Amino acid sequence: MARWEPDSRGRLEQAALALYGERGFEATTVAEIAERAGLTERTFFRHFADKREVLFGGAAMLQELLVSGVAGAPDAAAPIEAVLTALEAAGALLQERRAYARQRQMIIAASAELRERELIKLASLASALADALRRRGVSDPAASLTAEAGIAVFRVAFERWTQEGNQKDLPQLIRESLDELRVVTAGL
Amino acid sequence: MARWEPDSRGRLEQAALALYGERGFEATTVAEIAERAGLTERTFFRHFADKREVLFGGAAMLQELLVSGVAGAPDAAAPIEAVLTALEAAGALLQERRAYARQRQMIIAASAELRERELIKLASLASALADALRRRGVSDPAASLTAEAGIAVFRVAFERWTQEGNQKDLPQLIRESLDELRVVTAGL
Repeated sequence: MARWEPDSRGRLEQAALALYGERGFEATTVAEIAERAGLTERTFFRHFADKREVLFGGAAMLQELLVSGVAGAPDAAAPIEAVLTALEAAGALLQERRAYARQRQMIIAASAELRERELIKLASLASALADALRRRGVSDPAASLTAEAGIAVFRVAFERWTQEGNQKDLPQLIRESLDELRVVTAGL
Repeated sequence: MARWEPDSRGRLEQAALALYGERGFEATTVAEIAERAGLTERTFFRHFADKREVLFGGAAMLQELLVSGVAGAPDAAAPIEAVLTALEAAGALLQERRAYARQRQMIIAASAELRERELIKLASLASALADALRRRGVSDPAASLTAEAGIAVFRVAFERWTQEGNQKDLPQLIRESLDELRVVTAGL
């Protein structure tokens, strides 16, 4: 009989990350993750569709956060300001989970399959951001370009944030990366 | 005995595109492509690793073109100008194959697998562009941001170019999209 397990999802995530880091993502099985967490495979599959989902389960929440951030920005805000506000809010939340985010990033960097999944996730985010901008009345191509610019800024900021030796927080790196994007696109 | 077939590669491409358009990518087999082209499967596999490669075989050439465009830009050119020059040159070549590019785009849009492959290809292009900029002495994060901006501009311009009713040529749409990106990132 399965007992009720407090925070079994969190324990499974932790166990999975530890194992992916030790053995690599490909070599780790769901059975091993469940065992490390002291739970059953059945419990694993109550929380995650497969072992990849452990790493990408947060994507829907991030998307929701960005879309509602854009929708909730002041009417007077320029599209890029609405996107920046949303990215900073998401960045502030991620900032609280830096150790996790860094560990996750190292695992993803080590696997071609996971890198591809991450790219696809970021493209969905860009597409959701563009839709959110269109709902604010932004027309194309401005909506697509602003969304793409936002995701490019987020990617670059996120990479800098997870680098060894970085001292800056993610919202700050997001603002700096947008400033830098302005400078480079202007050709200065 | 196989005869030597003039432009068998081109005939296979044409046959594949026609079949993907008629039946969808997933439902088409290599045997059918070869038959439509009046060639053997063996000939198909001399030119392409699989049926997906028919659509992505041009990626290496495009990457080569962009990288050499960036490398060959005048020393005094700002990074974004070097990228723009390279994108315009690639755009001018693609312009000559508009009917093909449009047909290819419709096939890709209809398949999740192909859309993912296209994303991955574009990410590789961004990464190759960033490397080419680093070889020009551009440091990070400017190199990554400029490359990402370039690919965002290219994607948006390409999409506009393949749209029904578009009259503008691709190099022009690339320039316009970069101008638009400057405007939206500035928050004007």
